[in-house]
Formats: sequence, C-alpha cells, structure tokens
Amino acid sequence: MTRPTPVSGFPELLPAQRNAELAVIERLRTTFELHGFANIETRVAEPLDVLLRKGEIDKEVYVLRRLQSDDDASDSGLGLHYDLTVPFARYVLENAGKLEFPFRRYQIQKAWRGERPQEGRFREFTQADIDVVMKDELPFHFDVEVARVMAEALSTLPLPPLSLRVNSRKLIEGFYRGIGAADPATVIRIIDKLDKLAADQVAAMLVTDAALSDEQAKQCLALADISTPDTSFVAQVRALGVEHELLDTGLAELTAVVEGCAPANNDRFTVQASLSLARGLDYYTGTVFEIYMQGYESIGSVGGGGRYDALASDGRTTYPGVGISFGISRTLVPLISRGLLTSTRSVPSAVLVALADEESRGASDNVARQLRARGIPAEVAASAQKYGRQIRYADRRGIPYVWFAGDTGHEVKDIRSGDQVAADPATWTPPSEDLRPQVTSKEQDQ
Amino acid sequence: MTRPTPVSGFPELLPAQRNAELAVIERLRTTFELHGFANIETRVAEPLDVLLRKGEIDKEVYVLRRLQSDDDASDSGLGLHYDLTVPFARYVLENAGKLEFPFRRYQIQKAWRGERPQEGRFREFTQADIDVVMKDELPFHFDVEVARVMAEALSTLPLPPLSLRVNSRKLIEGFYRGIGAADPATVIRIIDKLDKLAADQVAAMLVTDAALSDEQAKQCLALADISTPDTSFVAQVRALGVEHELLDTGLAELTAVVEGCAPANNDRFTVQASLSLARGLDYYTGTVFEIYMQGYESIGSVGGGGRYDALASDGRTTYPGVGISFGISRTLVPLISRGLLTSTRSVPSAVLVALADEESRGASDNVARQLRARGIPAEVAASAQKYGRQIRYADRRGIPYVWFAGDTGHEVKDIRSGDQVAADPATWTPPSEDLRPQVTSKEQDQ
Repeated sequence: MTRPTPVSGFPELLPAQRNAELAVIERLRTTFELHGFANIETRVAEPLDVLLRKGEIDKEVYVLRRLQSDDDASDSGLGLHYDLTVPFARYVLENAGKLEFPFRRYQIQKAWRGERPQEGRFREFTQADIDVVMKDELPFHFDVEVARVMAEALSTLPLPPLSLRVNSRKLIEGFYRGIGAADPATVIRIIDKLDKLAADQVAAMLVTDAALSDEQAKQCLALADISTPDTSFVAQVRALGVEHELLDTGLAELTAVVEGCAPANNDRFTVQASLSLARGLDYYTGTVFEIYMQGYESIGSVGGGGRYDALASDGRTTYPGVGISFGISRTLVPLISRGLLTSTRSVPSAVLVALADEESRGASDNVARQLRARGIPAEVAASAQKYGRQIRYADRRGIPYVWFAGDTGHEVKDIRSGDQVAADPATWTPPSEDLRPQVTSKEQDQ
Repeated sequence: MTRPTPVSGFPELLPAQRNAELAVIERLRTTFELHGFANIETRVAEPLDVLLRKGEIDKEVYVLRRLQSDDDASDSGLGLHYDLTVPFARYVLENAGKLEFPFRRYQIQKAWRGERPQEGRFREFTQADIDVVMKDELPFHFDVEVARVMAEALSTLPLPPLSLRVNSRKLIEGFYRGIGAADPATVIRIIDKLDKLAADQVAAMLVTDAALSDEQAKQCLALADISTPDTSFVAQVRALGVEHELLDTGLAELTAVVEGCAPANNDRFTVQASLSLARGLDYYTGTVFEIYMQGYESIGSVGGGGRYDALASDGRTTYPGVGISFGISRTLVPLISRGLLTSTRSVPSAVLVALADEESRGASDNVARQLRARGIPAEVAASAQKYGRQIRYADRRGIPYVWFAGDTGHEVKDIRSGDQVAADPATWTPPSEDLRPQVTSKEQDQ
C-alpha cells in the first residue's frame, strides 16, 4: 500500500487535535445535560423519501448502494442524513408513544453532504444540536430556554468569540404587515439576501418582486439595519413608527430571548439581536438563530436554528419544536488547519513511568497501576532506553511528568520545569490541570 | 408523514436505553485513557480499493453514490468502513510522519455491513477498538498490555459476565509442527471450524485435507480441548508430550497474557486460555483474542483481535500491531431489546423544579441555575400544573427529586421515598448516585 492521501472534504484530526475536539464536545455535553437535555443517536441513514421530503434535493445526498447486491437495483433506498433535524423529526414520530413530552434532546453526530468542499464546508462534518419538541403546543418559554442553553454552552468554548444572533419572524412579519406589505413571505426571502447582495439591490428587488413602494423598501432596510447586543433594539424599532399586533408580540419575544441569554455574555460569547436575520426557510415561524465566529465571518454562519411549529406530523398529531444546531467541524477544522487550536498533548497520559531495564517492567507497571487507581493516566516506557531518551519520549508526546522508580525510592520529574522530587505512587497527585490534555489556542494573525 | 417504522439492522435506542450505552462507553473510555490510549476518529468512508484490499468482498460494503451526480458514473469511489482496523491502518500510513510510535489508540465508532440482519448482527453497529502499533518491531509485552487494558475495561461493564478467551498462534503452530504436520496453516483453518462442526467431522477433515494421521488428528483435538482460567494449561499441554521450540515460545507468551489479565478477574469478567481458539484469518501471527458474553454464546463472539505483524506497510516501513475490538452494539442491543438493560431515567435531570404559577417561572429558573452551578442537572416544570401532576411528570422520567420554591422557604421531595425536607438551593446536594442516570440490568430468565 503506497502512502494514502486525504480525501477532500472529509477532515480527520491528529490525536492532539482530536483532544481539543473532545474537550469542546465534553463542554457542550456537560451544559446540555445540566439543563436536562437527553442524548440520542440516530442511525446515519434515512429512507430517501424522508430525506427528500422537503424538496431540497440540492442537498447532495449520498445514497447507499450495496456492493454485493444480487441485481442491478442495488440501491438500498437509504441515504446518509445531511443534518440532524430530519432524523430527529423521524425519530420523534417513530417513537412518539414511548417518549415523554416536552422532549429535550441533544445529538452530537456526523452528517454528510456531497457538495463541493470549500473553506468551512465539508462532505463529512460533526454538529451538535439541541431541540425541545412538544405535542400540539409548545409554549414560548422554550424558545428562551433553548437560546439560553446554547448561549451558556457556547460561552464555555475555547474558541474565538462566538455570537448568537437572534431575531423573530413575528417581529419582521408584523413590521412588514404594519407598513402594508401584501406578501410578507416574499419580503422575508428578499431581506434574507442582504448578506450576499448590496442594500440598493435588495431595495430594488423589494420594489419589483414584493411590490413595495420605495418608501416601504426603505423602511424594511432600516429595520434590517438594527442590530444591538441588548434590548435597545425595541426603542429603535419603535422609532420607525410602525404599528402591528404581531410586531408587538415579536418585540416582546425577542426581548425575552435576549434577556435570557444576557447572563452568558462574556469575552467569548455575546448575544445579538440582529433584525436582518431572516433565515429564508419557510418552516421557521418565530424565533430564529444564527451563530457566527468572530474573525471567521467569511465562512458564514457556524450554526443556526429556530422555532418550527410543525417539526413533524403524523396527520393526527403535530409536534412543534425549537432548536439550535452548532457546527463543531465548521468552527474547529478551520482553526485546527491554521494551527490555531490543538491541545497540550497527543496522549491522555499525565505520567510516563520510566523503565530502568526490561527486568523491572513489573515494578514500573506496578507504579502505573497505583497512579491509575487514583485516576491519573499513566503509561510505562516502551523500552529501557537511556533516561534522557525516555524523557524526550515523554516530551514529544507532551506528557508532563516522568516517574523514576529506583531501589532507594521514587522520584518524579516535571519535565517542563526540570523539578524532580521524591514521590510516593500511593499518594502523589499532579495539579488537576495536568490530569487531562488542555486545549491550547492562538489568536489569528491579523 | 405517516408513522415511520424501524429499518431492519439499524438499531436505535430510546433515551433511557441510550443512557445505558453512554455509561458503557464512558467506562471503556475511562479505562483506555487511564492506560494512555489516545482517541482518534476516522472518516466513515474509505476508498473502495482500501476496503477491498484483503479480498474479502463478501463484507457487503455499502458504496456511496451521489444522488445529484452529473453523469451515470455517480459512485464516489468510497464505501462505508466495515470495521475500525482497516481505517486505522490507513490512518497510520497516511499520518506516519506525524505520529509518535508506539501509538496506542482507541476508537469508538460505528461500522456498517450490508449483510442480512440477525440476532446480534447489525447493518449499523458501534464498536470499541484498542490497538498498539509500532514501526518495524513491536515487543511482545504490548500483547500483554492490550489484553490487560481490555480485561480491565470489560471487568467494569454492567453486563452479563464477559470472558476474554486467549490463545497463541505460536503455541498451536508449534504444537502442529511438533507432531509433524506438514501444513500447520491448513490445520489452523480446520481447527477453527470446531465451533461449527462436530469433533469427529473436524478429525476427518484433518486427515483428508491436512494429511494428518488419525493419531496426529487426535492430538490436535486433545490440544483444542484444553481450556483453563489460569496457567494450568501449560501442564496439560506438556502432558501431551509434544516438543517444539515455537510451542515453548507460545506457552510462555500465553502464560504472560493470562497472568497479565488475572488481576481483572471478578464476577463480571474472566480470562480464559482457550486452545481451540484459532481465528482463521491469516494475518494474525501471535496472540489471538475472542470475547464472549455468558448466556449469549449463541450470538457468537462479541469481540476479538490479536497480533498482526503487518497491520500496515508502505513498502519501506512495516507497522506491526496488536489490538482487540469490543462490540458495543453486539452486547448491548440484545440485552436492551429483551428489556434486560436500561437506566434509571430518560433525562439527565436529577431535580425537577416545580412551578407554582407561570409568574414564578423566573424564581424556579433561579433555583435550577443555582443547582446547575454546582453540577446538579435540573429542569424546570414545563407548566404550572397541580403539584401532583408535576410529581407524576418527574416520576415518568425517573427524575428522583422535585423541588418546591415557596414564599416561606424551599423544600425538596425524594419522590421514591416520599420524604420531603427543607433545603437551600445554594447548598443542597443529592447523593452522588442520584446525580446521573444509573444503569439497571436484570438477569435473563433461564
């Protein structure tokens, strides 16, 4: 086998990099579980009719074909999921009789899209989704809860600052109705293009495609221009002088979401009321979310979601939901590939137990066993090289401590400082930050 | 959407069942990491030539075909991996220059085989693999280490008793050479059929296909009959009166492996020297392993592995390895589907904070926040129903505690015992076993 090369769009990590990803996943899981979100895992493949129901066949689904099939019709009828929402909706319907509602779930899995790979876009990627789903009616306070939980989770991540941009479809639809727009859905679809088109182009489309007057189009752009890290957006909207009952509801809901997330604001995370945020997809009916990473706006949003009043329906019962998806690969892989994110070591081991000679392997094993029994990851040197080489062996892996078990007593060396002290394998404990690999991140050169 | 039905061979778990699986995965990870095994994750798909290199095209590989392809040749050239060893070998070759050897890695991922689903056999399944891989030469002590690590990990699992059966290809090949067998490889392949064929059928095949005399065939079966939970197999082999240098090496190595695993023996785990174990695959060259679950021998082995002197090679460098794979789906799904394994609750929440009325949601949120800040998973009631209904809400989810925040003080009720006591959200802590869902297992009816 000649040396294999990477497959484009399928990123893989080296062990030290994987430790950084594991740390991110662990922080997400911890926050989600503290808030009572249960984990599920769905199979990677769904029947094609489930995947393609929404008509978005541009999703570039990977279909599974059995290599050893008996006939030409070898497609399994299954395709890899391209997100975690479609499988979740199917899971809810399939297991509705066995689930308790409201059902809070988180799901951290890979998804696949056969699209052309580009920066921040992969064919295989990992994402973390939280959703709350209910039968029939989902009270609004779950919008606040989902936003707050994701805000808390994001605020713990060792990444460039993340922002959760929020808006309310009710707010903007109410505003568009308030100015007399006949077709608010079309206005939303056009406003959604503001991140790709210039404002005057969008204004022109509002006139030609949504039948607005120049003045109405100007009002829409003025609304979209409002973006505040707090609830001051309310006064700015009111200053535009538009009145509509749905606008009032939207303003109240967006206020509640922003206030709910405010405690999570820190130097790594901010919530932002962004009234240009529309998320063109028809199925969002209330709060909408997008996540951005500071300095990486060019890769687009790294997560998003919102409220959908019909996540799933079996004809008799409708299951409304609200959720947010966070792109783990989308955020981590660009940082890792630039060398801006990794971890302090490539192995879990906090201690390398040195080996005086092959005959004393049992004694070194015994030291390692005592350390492990107290939760300290340890490995024994692979061979009885000179101690200098064993220390370099630890150094190359980022293992902070080397243990020497001599006839006259034990000593442990912190190879970063060079300090070497007497130690008892039954009681010695490293500082807690040395127990596990630590994430290390660098700022991008500006 | 009508109610979807399960897809055969792609098992999925309900939240409480998934908690049991997560607990198993967590115990495996903890043990692997304490021993310095690093985690990696490989992409789910490999080029078909990598997957089919070994000529085992009966693996029923799922090929990925792009639905939206421009032409008829829509196969991506990629197939889903059917184990974690082939991707690992590819990963080692691809990243050899960036890895430190010996490279201890664990990998817990899904794999796929398009075979006919049957009990304990799935089209999608999760497995946990540990391997140590080295450049050029891998000292034997790594065989002992890998066995010991897996033994320790298995001995922590809340499953029916597991046994790690071990043998040495050197031991049996040396024995076959010692009795004068001209083609030991053929003898091994025939002996490997002992789990499917009767002893006299195997004896007949040894005579016809491996050109052994009746007496030699009898000796081979006598060897295969030896199975001991300790090193007493040595005396039993010696009693057969066969001499060969390779046999001596095999006996010494198998002794070391059995002794290395012995400390892990408990009521959930035993190591067993099983001299019938051959694992027909040609690439195993020394120690071989299989894992069985007591009471579920009918589903076959639930794991296995061994030493391969050429896990991977790029023509210049050879990478020998030794590893063991444990089938998470193979063990858990049969237990879960029989109702013998689940967990105490379907949500992470240890506490449900009750809601007096919708106006006091902020106060209840505040209680939950204080609990979470101290690591106690908590959720707030979805609506202000009567307290009796809120308690039943907790009970249906298995949440052990309900918190009441009244004007005159706080109280917490253990809904299992009915005990209700005054409590302070800033200091109250449940017993540690109530912090997380606990695995619950029942014995199979005999």
